[in-house]
Amino acid sequence: MSAKQGAPHSTIKLAPRDTIGILGGGQLARMLALAAASYGLKTHIYAPEEDSPAFEVSSTFTCAAYEDELALERFAKSVDVITYEFENVPLATASSVSRFAPLLPEAQALAVTQDRLFEKTRLQDLGLPVAPFLAVETPEQLEQALQTLKMPCILKTRRMGYDGKGQVRVSSREDLQAALNLLAHAPAILEGFIAFNREISVIGARSQEGEFVAYDVCENIHTHHILAQTTVPAQLLETTRQKAIDMAQSIAHSLNYVGILAVEMFVVRTPTGETLIINEMAPRVHNSGHWTLEGAQTSQFEQHIRAICGWPLGSPHLLGDVRMRNLVGDEAKTWESCLSDPYASLHLYGKADIREGRKMGHITWVMPPKSSSKPV
Amino acid sequence: MSAKQGAPHSTIKLAPRDTIGILGGGQLARMLALAAASYGLKTHIYAPEEDSPAFEVSSTFTCAAYEDELALERFAKSVDVITYEFENVPLATASSVSRFAPLLPEAQALAVTQDRLFEKTRLQDLGLPVAPFLAVETPEQLEQALQTLKMPCILKTRRMGYDGKGQVRVSSREDLQAALNLLAHAPAILEGFIAFNREISVIGARSQEGEFVAYDVCENIHTHHILAQTTVPAQLLETTRQKAIDMAQSIAHSLNYVGILAVEMFVVRTPTGETLIINEMAPRVHNSGHWTLEGAQTSQFEQHIRAICGWPLGSPHLLGDVRMRNLVGDEAKTWESCLSDPYASLHLYGKADIREGRKMGHITWVMPPKSSSKPV
Repeated sequence: MSAKQGAPHSTIKLAPRDTIGILGGGQLARMLALAAASYGLKTHIYAPEEDSPAFEVSSTFTCAAYEDELALERFAKSVDVITYEFENVPLATASSVSRFAPLLPEAQALAVTQDRLFEKTRLQDLGLPVAPFLAVETPEQLEQALQTLKMPCILKTRRMGYDGKGQVRVSSREDLQAALNLLAHAPAILEGFIAFNREISVIGARSQEGEFVAYDVCENIHTHHILAQTTVPAQLLETTRQKAIDMAQSIAHSLNYVGILAVEMFVVRTPTGETLIINEMAPRVHNSGHWTLEGAQTSQFEQHIRAICGWPLGSPHLLGDVRMRNLVGDEAKTWESCLSDPYASLHLYGKADIREGRKMGHITWVMPPKSSSKPV
Repeated sequence: MSAKQGAPHSTIKLAPRDTIGILGGGQLARMLALAAASYGLKTHIYAPEEDSPAFEVSSTFTCAAYEDELALERFAKSVDVITYEFENVPLATASSVSRFAPLLPEAQALAVTQDRLFEKTRLQDLGLPVAPFLAVETPEQLEQALQTLKMPCILKTRRMGYDGKGQVRVSSREDLQAALNLLAHAPAILEGFIAFNREISVIGARSQEGEFVAYDVCENIHTHHILAQTTVPAQLLETTRQKAIDMAQSIAHSLNYVGILAVEMFVVRTPTGETLIINEMAPRVHNSGHWTLEGAQTSQFEQHIRAICGWPLGSPHLLGDVRMRNLVGDEAKTWESCLSDPYASLHLYGKADIREGRKMGHITWVMPPKSSSKPV
């Protein structure tokens, strides 16, 4: 799956020994830094949290607030390109650093994805399928939107939502108070509830020259709104698979995107086949792509590094039937039994404290392909 | 290939977030640190060279001389187990640090392998096949030894030799002056020259409990005494393959060894089959095992970490037909074309200066197994 299209980015090209700046210091930054190191690149991590897991594997780190203009300037001047590990980097931060070094993916990817209203609107403008939605700021607007969309609905804060945070399901009038409480804190959007059959994601990469490649489509299971398991390839009709990748590609081209882009979608079975609805997207490496470390010729972390460095994209070739399971909270305590499974590859993120709902690590199994798990 | 035997080591057991100390800061330490990081472990690198490639990916580093007792003590007290990336760590250094933290593999592995005379003698004592050899310290002893072993011979310094450094081939009287020059600097051994057909290596790991597992046997090609290429599996008779692994295992057990051990051997074709002669061994992860990063279920770096942490050994399962090519000196300048090969995995070590004979990186290709490259 490869196609060159859309506007090329003004070319930035790094050489080995150059330095990649990363905003954010969690496990995604950590795995990006490890991939960069395997290419002989240096990394400089910028994050406000003192115990950021990525600090431990980076060449340099800056522990400072995203509002610290002086620290941001010093950071940006010390690197050759800047990227980020999460979409909630403040736009002002992105703007500050991009005065001193190129920022990839560009800030517009942040602007679009850090606000659900902007994101949904952009997808709709591209002619892509999303759940029906309405912007809601007041109790009156909520009441009106519920009349229009019909329950069940989901009320989501427009900003700073992830892993199910900032969401309330409104199935009946009894859920209304919880919804009003959420709305009292932040503007939101109300979305019609989609009764989906499967959740999938497309992990794709776009180069500075406009080339787009995608990994095999991932099938995801969430538990308590947190990704629990990914299997690849997803069980999909071939036409659905192709449509999912085409949609991710058209988003990437429309944003003049550079790097790894993740697009989460719902699959709804219909009398005649399958329909896709885009749930959300992430302008970064993604949890549902962690399996690529062992399961693909090029990992998503290497691929992101290649794209932002102006290097040729790597092959996304799938190496077997893949299952990835997250180790969330106390599940991390099973690390020892994971090590005894001869087929399992264990990854731990070096986080000091186990907390409920905290992603501590993951395990990947790659098996020789079986006919049963091929696309139907 | 797995067998439990020999004396178990007194058990040391680390947990994720514990710290591994590594003596030496080159590419082997760098790749060990990356493997440790993927398991959530921290690393502390100790090396005298300011531009040590491993410093960039470690949680902590100490840049100090191997004779700096105070720095060694501080280093050793800050870690939970200590290992090394090369066999020329001074024994006094090993002894100093092991007063404060467990050293694995134990210092006796250093003592044996850093002196060719001790190494050859130990192998001979184990009943293992080595080239005929004689200790040589004076011109008279050299003359005598040449009479006994017959030319061609190879004169090698007993200590500090690697990648062909400290070796002179003596094929005729014309080579004698070069041999005398070498001998003037250091005690040596004279070895009978082996007209081998293939060079192979066994990369094995032994756990603290005495379990031994080996990777598929590697076939190596050296250019100017530096490893140029490794292919796996080696083209060998099944009996030779098994014998090679058995020999590595008996060395590991005899040293009460913990970690990755590499044993290089010559294969000599005979009228009735193949004979093996052990060339040398290395008490550490080894260049001919770099392919395990992509080509085996568990990489040699992960395996070494598992062994010294007291964790279960991982599966050495081979994932395909493998070729690994070193990027030596100027070959590193081909990095960009390597990135364009969809089947190649590129690794660069982050070294600042390209120098002749310097190992700058490597490339691995893993292909679905073909019948032609199976053991004959």
